Amino acid sequence: MKYAIGIDVGGTSVKMGIVSTEGELKEAWEIPTRVEDGGKAILPDIAASVKEHISGIADDVTGAGIGLPGPVDDEGVIRKAVNLGWDRTFNVAEELSGLLSGMTVKAANDANVAALGEYWLGAGKDYGDMVMVTLGTGIGGGIVHHGKIYAGTTGAGGEIGHICLNPNEKLSCGCGKKGCFEQYASATGVVRLANEELKASSDPSELRDAPVTAKAVWDAVRNHDKLAIRVAERFGYYLGWGLSIIAGVVNPEVFVLGGGMSKAGDMMIPYVREHFDKYTFHACRDAQIVIAKLGNSAGTLGAAKMVID
Amino acid sequence: MKYAIGIDVGGTSVKMGIVSTEGELKEAWEIPTRVEDGGKAILPDIAASVKEHISGIADDVTGAGIGLPGPVDDEGVIRKAVNLGWDRTFNVAEELSGLLSGMTVKAANDANVAALGEYWLGAGKDYGDMVMVTLGTGIGGGIVHHGKIYAGTTGAGGEIGHICLNPNEKLSCGCGKKGCFEQYASATGVVRLANEELKASSDPSELRDAPVTAKAVWDAVRNHDKLAIRVAERFGYYLGWGLSIIAGVVNPEVFVLGGGMSKAGDMMIPYVREHFDKYTFHACRDAQIVIAKLGNSAGTLGAAKMVID
Repeated sequence: MKYAIGIDVGGTSVKMGIVSTEGELKEAWEIPTRVEDGGKAILPDIAASVKEHISGIADDVTGAGIGLPGPVDDEGVIRKAVNLGWDRTFNVAEELSGLLSGMTVKAANDANVAALGEYWLGAGKDYGDMVMVTLGTGIGGGIVHHGKIYAGTTGAGGEIGHICLNPNEKLSCGCGKKGCFEQYASATGVVRLANEELKASSDPSELRDAPVTAKAVWDAVRNHDKLAIRVAERFGYYLGWGLSIIAGVVNPEVFVLGGGMSKAGDMMIPYVREHFDKYTFHACRDAQIVIAKLGNSAGTLGAAKMVID
Repeated sequence: MKYAIGIDVGGTSVKMGIVSTEGELKEAWEIPTRVEDGGKAILPDIAASVKEHISGIADDVTGAGIGLPGPVDDEGVIRKAVNLGWDRTFNVAEELSGLLSGMTVKAANDANVAALGEYWLGAGKDYGDMVMVTLGTGIGGGIVHHGKIYAGTTGAGGEIGHICLNPNEKLSCGCGKKGCFEQYASATGVVRLANEELKASSDPSELRDAPVTAKAVWDAVRNHDKLAIRVAERFGYYLGWGLSIIAGVVNPEVFVLGGGMSKAGDMMIPYVREHFDKYTFHACRDAQIVIAKLGNSAGTLGAAKMVID
């Protein structure tokens, strides 16, 4: 049996796994991400850990894939990764390959790698072209086209969180622009919409009893809380409209919703679907909208898949 | 020297060409499109004409590509083409191949084929991933990724004219939805914006002297007509914003503006660029915006390119 190494680099830890070419996660482990000194130890730490873990099976390892929190182009060049302390532009794939005695290495953005994992073994498994949308503090995403990551020119393909839905927005997004998709349809966006609804009326709601979080909103929706349902409807409008635009550009067969907020599960789909159907061009309207399945392991699995044909 | 046949099917005529693998158009000709009787003569007419024109060089012809006015998927299946009288779903590539004694045939949407032509020999030649935007009565488009057409699941990839920019629009688009991109940034959209400006003030303008067309608007802009310049600014807002969204999804290196209205030329670029820069996520903002170069021959050349490696 042949294996590939999957590496998913985050700001605090690096998740790694040995994955069979059939998609079985044979072993998984983590090491801390040492971001000090411009993150110079990160790749050497990863290489040392990989070598240690594959010592008995090195001849059966076909390569390693690495997902990184920053834009990575098709060649493996990363421009910057503030969460890792990296502020230079360099070829991660080449550098890690050098540290691994010339092993085949491919690199990509972490959201793109997670998308590939879901495509290979998760919610996208039974579909063709796919767009993954990660709903967390912000909105990330990844496009899988013909079974491969669509990286785009500067590695920002599928980075849909900052498409501008509302040029008239008054509040600024973290990116400096105004009216970004993630200002409305992320977990942060849901909290904002909830606070707006709470302020706009004195209607009773369980959301008045504790700090408002996205989880609290979806829990309240589950309890038929009317105000929370209004929030879910507004969220569904923004997410459904946003997805309709993406569908009009890349015409996927499926959207996979992942990230922390996707834990709310299938309950959120009808709110999104209603508006998606309303705003999507008929030729793109058959796209499915489903919830991600792999959780945190999507990154490790997808990273490994990059070096498995 | 080897050749490929390029076929660009329109509602009134079929443009055809013999194209060398180096991109030289050796011969070009047209035949009428016979749309009567459900368009059943169209493919046989094309096959007969191709056979006649390649009689001396048949052994050097590597295949034929055909562009069609309707959504065509990666396999060559067209779902419908009202302009051709076709209302069935069938594999055009297979059917034409059968009529051409088994010749290799690939089929794609006409806007996608024109995009490939511009990528190969026109305004996209010096770039990587490209999005073509055709500004005519409506807005069409095509995505070229890694040198290939991005068809999408149902062949509607890059069909960006019906992404919804304004859910609050009152007027309906031809597609039945409201607020579509092409309601604002097509030639039709420019005429609409001009009529709104003419109605909103009594400012003098050469646009008051004759029927308003997109060409008249750009001619007036060239003459420093203040009202026409306001129209150009509003057009630039919508096109720049729309392109910014597309950039955030597929992160191209270049946008190529084609279609009838692109004849206004480089004059329109600054109006678009201003708003594109304002609304585009920084990682995607370096995309160039240029005017198409090949005119009507983009379709024939791009169709041929589908069967040239």
